[in-house]
Amino acid sequence: MDYIKAFAPATVANVACGFDIFGFAVDEPGDVVELRRREQPGIVITDILGDEGRLPRDPARNAVTVVMLRLLDHLKMPDFGCEVLLHKNMPLGSGMGSSAASAVAGVFALNELLGQPLTRKQLLPFAIEGERIACGSAHADNVGPSLMGGFVVIRSYQPLDVFSIPVPAELYCTLVHPDIEVNTKDARFILRNEVSLKNAISQMGNVAGLIAGLMQEDYALISRSMVDVIIEPVRAILIPEFNEVKQAAMEQGALGCSISGAGPSMFTLSKGKETAERVGQAMKETFALAGIDSVTHVSAINQGGPRVLESW
Amino acid sequence: MDYIKAFAPATVANVACGFDIFGFAVDEPGDVVELRRREQPGIVITDILGDEGRLPRDPARNAVTVVMLRLLDHLKMPDFGCEVLLHKNMPLGSGMGSSAASAVAGVFALNELLGQPLTRKQLLPFAIEGERIACGSAHADNVGPSLMGGFVVIRSYQPLDVFSIPVPAELYCTLVHPDIEVNTKDARFILRNEVSLKNAISQMGNVAGLIAGLMQEDYALISRSMVDVIIEPVRAILIPEFNEVKQAAMEQGALGCSISGAGPSMFTLSKGKETAERVGQAMKETFALAGIDSVTHVSAINQGGPRVLESW
Repeated sequence: MDYIKAFAPATVANVACGFDIFGFAVDEPGDVVELRRREQPGIVITDILGDEGRLPRDPARNAVTVVMLRLLDHLKMPDFGCEVLLHKNMPLGSGMGSSAASAVAGVFALNELLGQPLTRKQLLPFAIEGERIACGSAHADNVGPSLMGGFVVIRSYQPLDVFSIPVPAELYCTLVHPDIEVNTKDARFILRNEVSLKNAISQMGNVAGLIAGLMQEDYALISRSMVDVIIEPVRAILIPEFNEVKQAAMEQGALGCSISGAGPSMFTLSKGKETAERVGQAMKETFALAGIDSVTHVSAINQGGPRVLESW
Repeated sequence: MDYIKAFAPATVANVACGFDIFGFAVDEPGDVVELRRREQPGIVITDILGDEGRLPRDPARNAVTVVMLRLLDHLKMPDFGCEVLLHKNMPLGSGMGSSAASAVAGVFALNELLGQPLTRKQLLPFAIEGERIACGSAHADNVGPSLMGGFVVIRSYQPLDVFSIPVPAELYCTLVHPDIEVNTKDARFILRNEVSLKNAISQMGNVAGLIAGLMQEDYALISRSMVDVIIEPVRAILIPEFNEVKQAAMEQGALGCSISGAGPSMFTLSKGKETAERVGQAMKETFALAGIDSVTHVSAINQGGPRVLESW
């Protein structure tokens, strides 16, 4: 194989109650990477489309190529060479797992190009490295679902212990990205280092309820469990109109609504595509009333993770 | 029906990572209550066997009769009369849900005697009242599983939201009760009111892992998830030889080992009865080495909750 074009999905991390431990992938949007072998050793970024020139072109500092370099290092292939073209199909700092999608697309595409020397799960530590370059900390709640697809739980970071659970077929996600920017580091900085035991117990109950609800296809239980008493009340202040937009979503029948990752994107889960679309419309209109433009995406829960779009 | 004899199971609350939200019932031990209708109105306790005279005989102060009085009040049956005989088959303050088993046996038996005016789930708030009388706080993590059987999650207390999840058929519990006493109020008093966000995240990961592990019959995941970084490190100091006994259990193949409820009983989950028995023997021997007598119970996870033993 000399050329590969691959897609990796955007993701919703935290999923209301599961701060740092839950994430799921969506069918769209997602980043696309093109790799083309070249004779000379080394990885070069030929172009990045859609980032408005904001991402580093230095392969040692860009999430998509950092993971590729780590993988080549691991495979002891210093002489491998390829050109990288990255299509950013979602905004940076959006809370939709932008850097994770790039890192996963890069490491997945390279592994395919090399004939799959590693399994999907073995690629995870490399993708996490890319996240560290982009965000400053090695989180797995975006790269995990982007790489594995579906709904993913990070049970533990040390040692890394990640697993997937099935989700109901009729579950749809609405992602709404308002045209404002929240820095992930800021969003983390404003969190308290301590939580009350009472709130920790509430959150644990909702974590248990969401897992059981998803596995038992109990939409009512999913809905009751999509409550975050720890993170959302703090981070919501970074998103203008958060409460109004959430209320609009719930009034249109969303099962739950919270912040996607560190924000400012908001997400909902709904039963059925029609409800998810109606919910998205209401959210967009509510942002618009406050003069904030937004982009909405309605999609099923992605089940396969990254995929090859083209290769030869 | 003029007479009923009913059994309600002991329970393990918290189950390592699920403080105040998880509990499961065991097949033995359990309390037995006998109710006999009488002509005169009012509930009287004719005798309590096995409590060494420590439980109140006043029906307004005993967990078993308090719940019955509340139920009669709810049903507007002030003229109903019956005699109550309670067989305590487990020690008080043992961490095995002693008061919950009595309360559940009482309210279940009375509901049967009256021809099941309420469903099993509708009885829960009454049983919780009994727990409040006995422990000072209205917890559901013992009465929930004792009443419903199986593995129970208390997702929320306000409003009360309780559900059951399936467990693998080969899952066995070993309960070991050392001959020391821990007051539930003390065990709660020593807990900190705040936990670190880091520990809350760890615990949430384990909560998610235990639910998924039980539902997917993934014994390895169950084992990895039976970790409590919040409560056990604090309460373990109340149980002499805790670390040694836990180590002995794990060396014999237990999936996990922690404190049952507020202690001092310890519990393990194992795959298969044989392992559970070997684990119990090792735990008992380890306590004995330190001069502490103990009683062990090996049992499958109870699936039915309370049951009628005899009636006419």
